[in-house]
Amino acid sequence: MYFSTAVSEVVEGEVNLRGYALSDLMRNVTYTEGAFLSITGRLPSAAESRLVDAVLTSLLDHGFVASTITSARYIASGNPQFIPAVAGGILAAGGNTLSPEHSYQLLERAQELRDGGTLEDGAERIVDEFVAAKKRLPGFGHPIHKSSDFRADILFELAHELGLAGESIQLFQAIHAAFVRKTGRTGIPINIDGALAAVGSDLGWSANQTVAFAVLSVLPGLMAHVVEEIDQNRPLRYIQDGEYVGQPMTHRAPALNTASIGA
Amino acid sequence: MYFSTAVSEVVEGEVNLRGYALSDLMRNVTYTEGAFLSITGRLPSAAESRLVDAVLTSLLDHGFVASTITSARYIASGNPQFIPAVAGGILAAGGNTLSPEHSYQLLERAQELRDGGTLEDGAERIVDEFVAAKKRLPGFGHPIHKSSDFRADILFELAHELGLAGESIQLFQAIHAAFVRKTGRTGIPINIDGALAAVGSDLGWSANQTVAFAVLSVLPGLMAHVVEEIDQNRPLRYIQDGEYVGQPMTHRAPALNTASIGA
Amino acid sequence: MYFSTAVSEVVEGEVNLRGYALSDLMRNVTYTEGAFLSITGRLPSAAESRLVDAVLTSLLDHGFVASTITSARYIASGNPQFIPAVAGGILAAGGNTLSPEHSYQLLERAQELRDGGTLEDGAERIVDEFVAAKKRLPGFGHPIHKSSDFRADILFELAHELGLAGESIQLFQAIHAAFVRKTGRTGIPINIDGALAAVGSDLGWSANQTVAFAVLSVLPGLMAHVVEEIDQNRPLRYIQDGEYVGQPMTHRAPALNTASIGA
Amino acid sequence: MYFSTAVSEVVEGEVNLRGYALSDLMRNVTYTEGAFLSITGRLPSAAESRLVDAVLTSLLDHGFVASTITSARYIASGNPQFIPAVAGGILAAGGNTLSPEHSYQLLERAQELRDGGTLEDGAERIVDEFVAAKKRLPGFGHPIHKSSDFRADILFELAHELGLAGESIQLFQAIHAAFVRKTGRTGIPINIDGALAAVGSDLGWSANQTVAFAVLSVLPGLMAHVVEEIDQNRPLRYIQDGEYVGQPMTHRAPALNTASIGA
Repeated sequence: MYFSTAVSEVVEGEVNLRGYALSDLMRNVTYTEGAFLSITGRLPSAAESRLVDAVLTSLLDHGFVASTITSARYIASGNPQFIPAVAGGILAAGGNTLSPEHSYQLLERAQELRDGGTLEDGAERIVDEFVAAKKRLPGFGHPIHKSSDFRADILFELAHELGLAGESIQLFQAIHAAFVRKTGRTGIPINIDGALAAVGSDLGWSANQTVAFAVLSVLPGLMAHVVEEIDQNRPLRYIQDGEYVGQPMTHRAPALNTASIGA
Repeated sequence: MYFSTAVSEVVEGEVNLRGYALSDLMRNVTYTEGAFLSITGRLPSAAESRLVDAVLTSLLDHGFVASTITSARYIASGNPQFIPAVAGGILAAGGNTLSPEHSYQLLERAQELRDGGTLEDGAERIVDEFVAAKKRLPGFGHPIHKSSDFRADILFELAHELGLAGESIQLFQAIHAAFVRKTGRTGIPINIDGALAAVGSDLGWSANQTVAFAVLSVLPGLMAHVVEEIDQNRPLRYIQDGEYVGQPMTHRAPALNTASIGA
Repeated sequence: MYFSTAVSEVVEGEVNLRGYALSDLMRNVTYTEGAFLSITGRLPSAAESRLVDAVLTSLLDHGFVASTITSARYIASGNPQFIPAVAGGILAAGGNTLSPEHSYQLLERAQELRDGGTLEDGAERIVDEFVAAKKRLPGFGHPIHKSSDFRADILFELAHELGLAGESIQLFQAIHAAFVRKTGRTGIPINIDGALAAVGSDLGWSANQTVAFAVLSVLPGLMAHVVEEIDQNRPLRYIQDGEYVGQPMTHRAPALNTASIGA
Repeated sequence: MYFSTAVSEVVEGEVNLRGYALSDLMRNVTYTEGAFLSITGRLPSAAESRLVDAVLTSLLDHGFVASTITSARYIASGNPQFIPAVAGGILAAGGNTLSPEHSYQLLERAQELRDGGTLEDGAERIVDEFVAAKKRLPGFGHPIHKSSDFRADILFELAHELGLAGESIQLFQAIHAAFVRKTGRTGIPINIDGALAAVGSDLGWSANQTVAFAVLSVLPGLMAHVVEEIDQNRPLRYIQDGEYVGQPMTHRAPALNTASIGA
């Protein structure tokens, strides 16, 4: 066999999803539980399910501040179809937004640097490493939510309440404390990407699994904006506050030798 | 203002989503409720929430039979990154799969043809119209689930149990009955796309809103397959059962006149 | 065999492309000729090659006025990678921009309505049909180039010079003349989409083949803008001239019953 | 101004592209020249233009062996539309295929390790570094073209003939020689990705600019396959040689407490 999978098998009249009959799941689980099963391979506990609902609603919408949404609206303005705009909006998730995988890697690197020491040792060392390299720490700071990112705060609070806060949340907070201590900068809180990475790691998710839940979280808002853009039916929006800073139009192309071409 | 939206507004420390504070939603609603609010503009009732959970789990996975999943796995095999593969998989949703909008348009056209008559009149007329034009009816038939599509059956059953079955489900079933009566073909059941259109319409959703929920439903499985493909790390899968049926390699390109080019 | 193709076959040390050895093509044809061969199945004549170069440069760039480019720049601002931004930019080609297929269908419908009559008959009838249905004619008008679209003018001029102007160009111009005559509106010239459809049709291309050349034409500019956006390295651009016109944030979510959940 | 660009400016009746009037370019340059101007900011010489035509035809098609093409065909099979399939196919370009940027980075790293020494020093050191880390060298090897990649050979040969072979080609060949010397493995030639990186670097292109030309090169073949897939009209291809290796369908979901829900 060329492909193999442990995710699912389709047979006539049923789908086996991770060992469960899909007909059983449709009747007895919520989407949050079903998504958890699909992506991680097991059903969540009631407490996990509650925390994941908070994860999955944390990015429900971020309006015109979200690159995913702005990209999708420009796409829908040119091509007023639902599917391409939604797919195109997802493509805006990466280095500068909606990328908990970078915060996840920060946690992994801090664990490496910790090297048998305390969490605080790991935190100190990774802040030193980033400060020395003059690199921005992923998972910190937000253009609008400057004093604290309420979405991160709520996720951490719920993880504690539900008994699901583990070492990764502790470590991420230690990194933030070390950062404030060493740099004196207080307007750069842990942001939602950082919180998602820490919570995801404490739930046992891999980096890609964490991104999966983050993408599910943004989609309803993204989809609502795409539906709205298509319904507004304003064709061909363009960037109106753009400036040309290139060469003046004074160059001339050398003429083609086309003597022999033509009728 | 160049853009306007009724979906959301970001302010420092909060997001207003359809009139609700996101911090409130994170603490008090499930993803299913939050997605319903984002996409339709209001929170669902408990019964609606249960039905929508069934909608959102109906397509949780369809394995190697789903074009979305196979496309995404081929993309991840060339480019082992999560985001592009997920976006690319979504692009496979259209005319031949995962397109409840076509079944939705069937319902709208049947209502038009009904023209004051009974649902059965509408059903008869639309089947006649499609049969005369030799066109396939959208929302009917499946390559694997031949006698009946269990996902469609469960959605209809739950809609009835929860008191949410309305005229669209009735009409879709009437169209199916008219189809069987007129053509004698019994192995072509109402499929999940057809059921989603009927249930979505009875929930008050537009065609694009219905597609939105269908796409959310396939994503966890699609994501699970992408994670698995990346983890399997099998570079560059290719199509091994392909055949070339074109010209033999006997043509010659006319030589370029490049005498004057070069060092 | 599950797949079959008349496009190409890979063997060890060579690729057969439409009957030509790729090694031969690399040495002896231009990209324009190779693209023509790939997409249409034959090499172009010298005159066709010149006209196709004009087609392929007609959309080389349209700056901030192109939805493809603005979409791609927003995507690259969130996810500063080349491939996703280019793919996402292409997704903006559709109903409202870069869609010569709609003008192509206009030509096909006009030929149908002509029904044995003159080109002028076809032109008159299709304008009547669109005016009666209050629909916008595809291939007409531009937000910036109002008196005439210079790109369309040059394509028509070159097609004539090279002896490649056929019935489709004539018909498209007849439709425009009928439109001006019947509506008196003179600021709505044939635009580049309309010209591409007419020229493509006269070159023997199908609608999708015409779109293929249109997409190739926009790509270098799109790519240049993506490279520039990544190099500018301005993270997370967002829409700054947006307005919220929805519900005030006065709603409250009903509290979840979570008594039994947690540690 | 929120956006700035040195690429282009649209004015009524003209586009300024990198200092040239688009109307001038349409009449006097080939696509290859226009693409070079758009992406790099200057027109190529005649010799450069010939070499770039070879670059742009080197990947014109790679049939069912190309992940880009297989992905696009699966997408078109589900969603038979041109634009989404082409965009989705491009998304398959990455780590395992069509990624000259990784070979480009190899060259940059070898220059760094060279550190004032000869090209051979740089070559020796980078091979040692990769061999020690047990990492695969990018730009080497191909599943089908095992003794040599004819496309790479032709590009190098033309670069020499045209006087455009520089230090990067020399360095890439030195790395290959060091690799063969140190590992004794002879069936792993420089592949087309490696050649594109070396030729692109010698032409003065950045890594992203090199990828831009590589993507333009694959597009005509990709587009031809998409057109063919749509024309073949075989709905919903699926993976037929897949195997399920997961859990048996013996699990049961805990029943939802839905006593209070419903009519």
